Amino acid sequence: MMGGMSVLEAAVRANRIVVEVPRTGVEDWVVAAEVLLQEGLGAWAFPVELVHLLPEVLALHGHRARVGVCGVTDAEGVRTAVAAGAHFVLAPVSGSDLLAGAGEVPLLTGGLTPQEVADVLRTGADTALVAPADALGAAYARSLPPLFPAASLVPWGRLERYQCDMWFQAGASAAVVSEVILRPEDGAGANAPDEVARRAASFRPLNVN
Amino acid sequence: MMGGMSVLEAAVRANRIVVEVPRTGVEDWVVAAEVLLQEGLGAWAFPVELVHLLPEVLALHGHRARVGVCGVTDAEGVRTAVAAGAHFVLAPVSGSDLLAGAGEVPLLTGGLTPQEVADVLRTGADTALVAPADALGAAYARSLPPLFPAASLVPWGRLERYQCDMWFQAGASAAVVSEVILRPEDGAGANAPDEVARRAASFRPLNVN
Amino acid sequence: MMGGMSVLEAAVRANRIVVEVPRTGVEDWVVAAEVLLQEGLGAWAFPVELVHLLPEVLALHGHRARVGVCGVTDAEGVRTAVAAGAHFVLAPVSGSDLLAGAGEVPLLTGGLTPQEVADVLRTGADTALVAPADALGAAYARSLPPLFPAASLVPWGRLERYQCDMWFQAGASAAVVSEVILRPEDGAGANAPDEVARRAASFRPLNVN
Repeated sequence: MMGGMSVLEAAVRANRIVVEVPRTGVEDWVVAAEVLLQEGLGAWAFPVELVHLLPEVLALHGHRARVGVCGVTDAEGVRTAVAAGAHFVLAPVSGSDLLAGAGEVPLLTGGLTPQEVADVLRTGADTALVAPADALGAAYARSLPPLFPAASLVPWGRLERYQCDMWFQAGASAAVVSEVILRPEDGAGANAPDEVARRAASFRPLNVN
Repeated sequence: MMGGMSVLEAAVRANRIVVEVPRTGVEDWVVAAEVLLQEGLGAWAFPVELVHLLPEVLALHGHRARVGVCGVTDAEGVRTAVAAGAHFVLAPVSGSDLLAGAGEVPLLTGGLTPQEVADVLRTGADTALVAPADALGAAYARSLPPLFPAASLVPWGRLERYQCDMWFQAGASAAVVSEVILRPEDGAGANAPDEVARRAASFRPLNVN
Repeated sequence: MMGGMSVLEAAVRANRIVVEVPRTGVEDWVVAAEVLLQEGLGAWAFPVELVHLLPEVLALHGHRARVGVCGVTDAEGVRTAVAAGAHFVLAPVSGSDLLAGAGEVPLLTGGLTPQEVADVLRTGADTALVAPADALGAAYARSLPPLFPAASLVPWGRLERYQCDMWFQAGASAAVVSEVILRPEDGAGANAPDEVARRAASFRPLNVN
C-alpha cells in the first residue's frame, strides 16, 4: 500500500464502482472489457473460481484497469489471488489470517452486521465491505453508514443503480456491483455487448470521487 | 446500576417503548418532548451525533424523562455519552471496551444475528438489543426470541406499531423506535406536533410493563 | 461420530430434509410421525423446549427415524439434549463450549452471515447450519453457498419447497424445515394428517442424496 492512500484508493484508484464478473464467466470477455472501459468502469473483480483467467486479463487490460479477485473467505484464497497478480483482493469476511496472506496487495475485508463492520474497523482498517449488501434490504443502506461516520463502507452485491445511489447518499464510499451490469435478471448467460454498454452507462455517473 | 434491577429497568425504568430522536433533529424539540410526555412516552434516545443537545434536554426534562444516547459503536462514543450526563447508553454492537467505558451508567449492548445475541449474553448481560431489527423482516421477530427465553431482547429500528406488537408477543421486553413517531415515512423533516401526538398515542398502550 | 462419515451424515444419515417439530407441539404426534415416515421423511428435530418428549419418541420411532434436538444456543442446552438421548443436536450458533458439551453425539453448529459461517468452518467443522435462513431472502440462497464450496451448508428456517430447491441448486447439502410441513401459514395449531402427507410428499423428492 502506498503512503497516505486509503486502502480503497490503493485498491481501485479513483473508481467508485467495481464491476464483479459473474462466476459463470462472460462468453466474450474481451468485448465486454472494452465496453466497460469505454463507459469508464475500470475496476473489475473476478471471483476466486475464475482466478485462472487473471494472467490473460492482466496482460490485455492490466495497464488500463484495476483487476482484482473477490469472494475470498480464507487465507489460502488470499494467497491464490496474490500469486495470480491481483491488483486487489476483496473478502466478505475478516480475520488476521487473511490480512497476513495479502502482504502488500490491498485487501478489503468485510462483514454484514454492524458488529462485523465494527470488528473490521477494530483491525485498524479504514474501509469495510458490506456483503452481501442486497440481503438486508433498502433500509439497511440508510441505517448502517451513519453508525460508522469515520469509515469507508463499500456495499457489495446485486445492487441496482438506485440501490448504489441510496448507499452513496447515506455515506458509502464505493460499491461492488454483482451481475447487474454483465448479466440479465434471470441469471441465464451474459448480456450482449450493447446491453452491457447501456447498463454500464447508467452506472457511469456514480463512478467518480 | 442498582441492586436487583435489570439493566433494562435501570436504563428506562418502567418504559417499554424508547423513542429515538432522528439524527437530523426535531425543529421544535421542546414541543415534541412535551407531546411525548403527555402521551406517556418518557424514554428518549439521542443519536451520539446530537449528544451536544443533552445538557439542555436534561435540564428541561431530565426529572420527568429517561434521556439516553444511542448509536454508539465504540468506547469513545460510550465515554462521550456518559460525560454528557446520559441516563443510559444504547450500542448496536458489543465489546468489553464499551462496557468498561460505561462505568455505572446502564449500557445496553446488542447485535443482529442469533450468534451476536448469544455473544452479548455471554458477557453476562441479561439484555440484548437487536439492531437493526427492521433489516431482517417480520419472520425474525417470531424466530429470534424463542431461542433466548431467559434473556430480555430489545429490538431497535424503524418499527411500526404492529412490528413492536409482534416482537412483544414473541417475548421481547422493550423496543427502541426510530423515526416512526417523530418523522414521516418519506424522511423529510419532522412530524408536526399533532401528528407526533397521534403516533405516540398509538404506541402508548405498549408502553407498560 | 463414525470414522469417515461427515457430521451431517452421522447426524441424519441419508436424509436431506430435516423436519422441525413446532415449538407448540403437534396434537397427535404419533399419527404425524407415521405420515412423515410413510412419505420418507425420517429425520426430525425437536426444539429444546420439547426435549421432555424425546424418550417417548425415541422408544416409538427411534429405530426408524433420526431424532434430534434443535434451537440450542448454549452448552447447557447441548447437555440437556444429549442426556435425553438425541441422535443429533442442531445449534444456530457456534462456540467451543457447545462442542465440548456434545461429546460423541453429532452436533451441527451454525451462523447467519458469511463471517459466522466462516467461523464455524474455522472450528474444523465440515458442515454449517445457516439460521434463520428465511431471514435474508431468496438472493442469499444463491450468494452464500458459492463462497464456501468445500463446506456442507444446511439452511434452517421456514423454508417452502421452492426455497429448499434454490438452496440445493446453489450447493446446500440439506435443509431443516420449520413449520411448513406440520403447520399452516397462519401458525394456528397443526396441520391435519392428510395435509401433512400432502406437504411431506412435496418435499420427498428432495430427501435423497
